[in-house]
Amino acid sequence: MRKKVKKADNLSEWYLTVVQEGKFADYAPVKGTMIIRPNGYALWEAVVRIFDLRIKQMGVENGYFPLFIPMSFLEREKDHVEGFSPELAVVTHGGGKKLEESIAVRPTSETIMYDAYARWITSYRDLPLKLNQWCNVVRWEKRTFPFLRTTEFLWQEGHTAHETHEEAAKQVEAALNHYAEFLRETLALPIVIGKKSKSETFAGALYTFSCEALMPDGKALQVATSHHLGQNFSKELAFNISFQNRDDQPDFVHQTSWGMSTRVIGGLLMTHGDDKGAIIPPRMAAQQITVIPITRKNEDEKLVFNFTDLVISQLAKDDYTAKADDREKTSPGSKFHDWEIVGVPLRIDIGPNEVKDKAVVVVRRDTGEKETVALADLNKRVGELLEAIQENLYQRAVDFLESRTTSATTMDDFQKQIKETPGFIRADWCGDPKCEEVIKDKTSATARVIPFEEPAEIGKCIVCEKQGKYQPLWSKSY
Amino acid sequence: MRKKVKKADNLSEWYLTVVQEGKFADYAPVKGTMIIRPNGYALWEAVVRIFDLRIKQMGVENGYFPLFIPMSFLEREKDHVEGFSPELAVVTHGGGKKLEESIAVRPTSETIMYDAYARWITSYRDLPLKLNQWCNVVRWEKRTFPFLRTTEFLWQEGHTAHETHEEAAKQVEAALNHYAEFLRETLALPIVIGKKSKSETFAGALYTFSCEALMPDGKALQVATSHHLGQNFSKELAFNISFQNRDDQPDFVHQTSWGMSTRVIGGLLMTHGDDKGAIIPPRMAAQQITVIPITRKNEDEKLVFNFTDLVISQLAKDDYTAKADDREKTSPGSKFHDWEIVGVPLRIDIGPNEVKDKAVVVVRRDTGEKETVALADLNKRVGELLEAIQENLYQRAVDFLESRTTSATTMDDFQKQIKETPGFIRADWCGDPKCEEVIKDKTSATARVIPFEEPAEIGKCIVCEKQGKYQPLWSKSY
Repeated sequence: MRKKVKKADNLSEWYLTVVQEGKFADYAPVKGTMIIRPNGYALWEAVVRIFDLRIKQMGVENGYFPLFIPMSFLEREKDHVEGFSPELAVVTHGGGKKLEESIAVRPTSETIMYDAYARWITSYRDLPLKLNQWCNVVRWEKRTFPFLRTTEFLWQEGHTAHETHEEAAKQVEAALNHYAEFLRETLALPIVIGKKSKSETFAGALYTFSCEALMPDGKALQVATSHHLGQNFSKELAFNISFQNRDDQPDFVHQTSWGMSTRVIGGLLMTHGDDKGAIIPPRMAAQQITVIPITRKNEDEKLVFNFTDLVISQLAKDDYTAKADDREKTSPGSKFHDWEIVGVPLRIDIGPNEVKDKAVVVVRRDTGEKETVALADLNKRVGELLEAIQENLYQRAVDFLESRTTSATTMDDFQKQIKETPGFIRADWCGDPKCEEVIKDKTSATARVIPFEEPAEIGKCIVCEKQGKYQPLWSKSY
Repeated sequence: MRKKVKKADNLSEWYLTVVQEGKFADYAPVKGTMIIRPNGYALWEAVVRIFDLRIKQMGVENGYFPLFIPMSFLEREKDHVEGFSPELAVVTHGGGKKLEESIAVRPTSETIMYDAYARWITSYRDLPLKLNQWCNVVRWEKRTFPFLRTTEFLWQEGHTAHETHEEAAKQVEAALNHYAEFLRETLALPIVIGKKSKSETFAGALYTFSCEALMPDGKALQVATSHHLGQNFSKELAFNISFQNRDDQPDFVHQTSWGMSTRVIGGLLMTHGDDKGAIIPPRMAAQQITVIPITRKNEDEKLVFNFTDLVISQLAKDDYTAKADDREKTSPGSKFHDWEIVGVPLRIDIGPNEVKDKAVVVVRRDTGEKETVALADLNKRVGELLEAIQENLYQRAVDFLESRTTSATTMDDFQKQIKETPGFIRADWCGDPKCEEVIKDKTSATARVIPFEEPAEIGKCIVCEKQGKYQPLWSKSY
């Protein structure tokens, strides 16, 4: 990178440099908003393309609901409005006139969608109703950070309605499992899955499941959530989504909602990058390979360029996306450097010797390892290397997460660990929000997630020393 | 359709019925907004998937710019602000506080994008810069109509910056040609392409090219536009997008913008549908075929269902998307009816006789024609029929457009035609906006487009009788 900053020295400065120099995003004039540049948007396009298949596998259909929600809608579920009203952007004027009722720019779409669900659902035959939308939402944030926390962000939000509590519970779990698999397998992002404590539960939900990643500074990043809404939104005084059940009785639907946003791009960049720039996991890379033609003399040029074209079209036969960097007046060294910032997983160098030998030099972005590969073996080897990079990125991140998951049985230990080896700290808790609050006040750490994998036994609450009920992972967070 | 309304009797009531009963869209609480339901959104997904390939063919990359634009940005190009300020939705409060500067919800993104272009472009080496975004925009509209005119709509907007006027002009033409081909070949929508008169030109552009379709009531529908912005937005007092040119001199970039929106879905539904409901052109259909298992006796059921599965998986081998309607307690007649409303291009009926004969009955949605096809020939025949439907829908629409394109040399003729055979009227015009205004006042028709195909000769202006300069197509419009 042009600006010399080491990831280990100053993560946030390093991250902002990668985002800027890698042309992933740029600042925008309205506070907290950002421009997603093509290198960043290509990552979001990959998320949409790949995760949308999983959405369809769950039998969920895509639709689109309005950006604008009447303020009165948000007020129908009391926890929901309490949770979101401090973050709203409000439209008061339209078409040159003051509006009779102010309009919220959607911070999430439960209320606008469920108003329609109430019209569409009358019988158990209309259930389950499973819709998703890919859209932008707005939450007025005080501290913002590119991708990780922005006033406007892009996301998908799934919203389903079911006949029974149990069926909705299965959907909550199915969505969470799809997130977990997708994050691990495609983004190479290790995560812990589990349940949120009451204070961290979505505003209006019975309970919230979450995928929590750990960033290199030991702060947790919540990357996807799945909520069981129970009948909170469907009951009479909220949206009155009633239906005739199989016993011909009136009933209210059981609902779920679940979402994942452009925040995952920030998590990906922060997790995998190094002092040279970003590293894109191969399964997420729109461009997997950059080919650099290296010619010193004019007479070589044509041979090298022809061979470059040949290599690119041979790779395309197996759907590997390779592009040449044929900029004139830019040295090979500068080109190496530029593509390292962007994080393209593989580089192929082609000079006159490579043309003569019918071979190319292949360089891994993650390890810097070089090898010479005969043209005849190239596609096979590229496939192996891309898989190896994907695996290596995941394993490095897993190793980090494991090395930064510690246990504390006393507040002293807890405070020492959060300072010296910040990360996830396992600590037993009685379940009382007051004790949760004490930990937050003393350490800035909060209960990120209560893992599904239950501990062998739970000891005393680290704060009040009563018998513990849960063993959450605690951490500071983004 | 459940509500009996004939397309020829009352187009707008017919259209609203198709939109509702076909579950393409539904009303939403904030005036002029709408919910795009899965059947409608699938059409937009097809537009995005197919047209995005054309965007990438032009060397244009996708990105994403913020929804929120400071009001002061819109004011930097004077025609632009005049054109858009009456239509703005304005955010005045965020995070519970009154904002220092009010924010516009984007009605289009020239201003927010060009502010960034000014930072990113310094040399001719940074040009051309070609970006596109798929997003939502908001324009406060007085009269709204599902898909055709809504307060919020989805669209793509391409924005390019070039070294020269000529290069920008080529981009304007390239975008228009892609729209024209896409609309004709994929949406089966015949259109006239040409230039807009000054009064219909985009606010801030040098000139605007347009694709104009003709709806069954003889009103024109503008379905895509491509603008040459010249240096209007780049010059010093606007966004100051300057660059060092090849002669080392400072210069301002030449720009284009071009867009197509969810409006095309309204055009598609209105153009192709009939008294039974919508008809989706096969190339736009997410589901091309509905298979109806028809069983009267229980002992047949298993045989018929197995054969249905076999047919669907055989069709899937050639990427034909077929789904079974296996609803219990719904009669075959009701199923036929439901799928006619939705407009799936082909239906396949399978009963015990079909299983015995290893054949199926295939029914075309556009003509209602039935034929029996042996299982062995099915994939080939389905391919032929889908192509035939695509072609027939286009040809029907072309015939209509041609039959409703007339010529008038006197105002009397013009007024008679606009009343008796509403459609495009060719009429010569001197180019004076005052004469244009006279026609509008007398007939409600406006100059929709000045076709690229020039007439052999141009006579006198139909209003002032001075020598004409143009022969626009005039029409009432949506």
